[in-house]
Amino acid sequence: MTDRLERQLDFIRELDRLKTVQRQTWLMDTSRKENSAEHSWHIAVMAMVLGEYAPDGGVDVNRVIQMLLVHDVVEIDAGDTFCYDKTAVNGQHTREQAAARRLFGLLPEDIGRRFKALWDEFEARQTPEARLANALDRLQPILNNYHTGGKSWQDNGISRDQVLARNRVMAQGAPTLWAYIEKLLDRAVDKGILTRSAS
Amino acid sequence: MTDRLERQLDFIRELDRLKTVQRQTWLMDTSRKENSAEHSWHIAVMAMVLGEYAPDGGVDVNRVIQMLLVHDVVEIDAGDTFCYDKTAVNGQHTREQAAARRLFGLLPEDIGRRFKALWDEFEARQTPEARLANALDRLQPILNNYHTGGKSWQDNGISRDQVLARNRVMAQGAPTLWAYIEKLLDRAVDKGILTRSAS
Repeated sequence: MTDRLERQLDFIRELDRLKTVQRQTWLMDTSRKENSAEHSWHIAVMAMVLGEYAPDGGVDVNRVIQMLLVHDVVEIDAGDTFCYDKTAVNGQHTREQAAARRLFGLLPEDIGRRFKALWDEFEARQTPEARLANALDRLQPILNNYHTGGKSWQDNGISRDQVLARNRVMAQGAPTLWAYIEKLLDRAVDKGILTRSAS
Repeated sequence: MTDRLERQLDFIRELDRLKTVQRQTWLMDTSRKENSAEHSWHIAVMAMVLGEYAPDGGVDVNRVIQMLLVHDVVEIDAGDTFCYDKTAVNGQHTREQAAARRLFGLLPEDIGRRFKALWDEFEARQTPEARLANALDRLQPILNNYHTGGKSWQDNGISRDQVLARNRVMAQGAPTLWAYIEKLLDRAVDKGILTRSAS
């Protein structure tokens, strides 16, 4: 076996651990919380279905998919940071940078650079592709929350105002989908599964 | 909400169920068996890492990725069929065709056709992209089996001869990776975690 193949397979072996990183989102059947590997799959397929909602229709969907496939790999070392947890969000950047160095550093240099560039692009949210990718990353947990009767919102005492503030960036990446989410959150408040404001 | 968006979101909601379809493969930490959603994520990232091992280097990696993202969606209705279970393999084709009709039929017609074409291409194994995709789909469970001390091979009484016979198609899609797997299976036999032949 060449050294190159060995490094590629070491990384692939390490990837398995993302299946054990638990998120705050519940599966729609409420049997358990979701993990970051299956979440990444879900939103990558969503990019194949919803790519047309990028503004001006002008995105390279394949780059969006690749970005979504790698966007959570750093969580293998850094863990999932619940976006409404202000304390955890504090150290997140430093933790994830160290994770990216170690994890992408397992790969042959050319591939590691490619993965790091995709992750950086996702995090920077400057390109239409990164904006759409970020919008889908936020859309999916909101849908799962809505369809489980607001389970994770209630577990964590999250209000509609917090969901709106946290996810408004979706408007940049996919304005039609954001308009849909604003209405969905109103419906969630009407149904009594989401409070209007922090109490 | 337009009828088109509604159909797209219905499909996306349905996708969540793939996270509860259990495979025979164990996670590398042996904490539980893997599900088909996280498996699909794992092999899609593997395509990004191992795309160069297609013969003549001539594949469209993005089509490989898209194929892998959708290749197991039919299991939402049809369940995972353990490849060494001859009885289950019998009805698999009919079950999966019906599942494809229902599931891809939820989507707007243009997207449903696109998904169905990717799945058909994967199943037919005629293009270099489909051959590489199939090779990766087989490589990952073998790696997980090896790194868990042969857990699923032993659970199901599978021998090296059976693994070789079942997975030899890998040689078409990724000959270098198949050569590596042949050696890995010899090592598994030497370590006593895989029997040589069916007893």
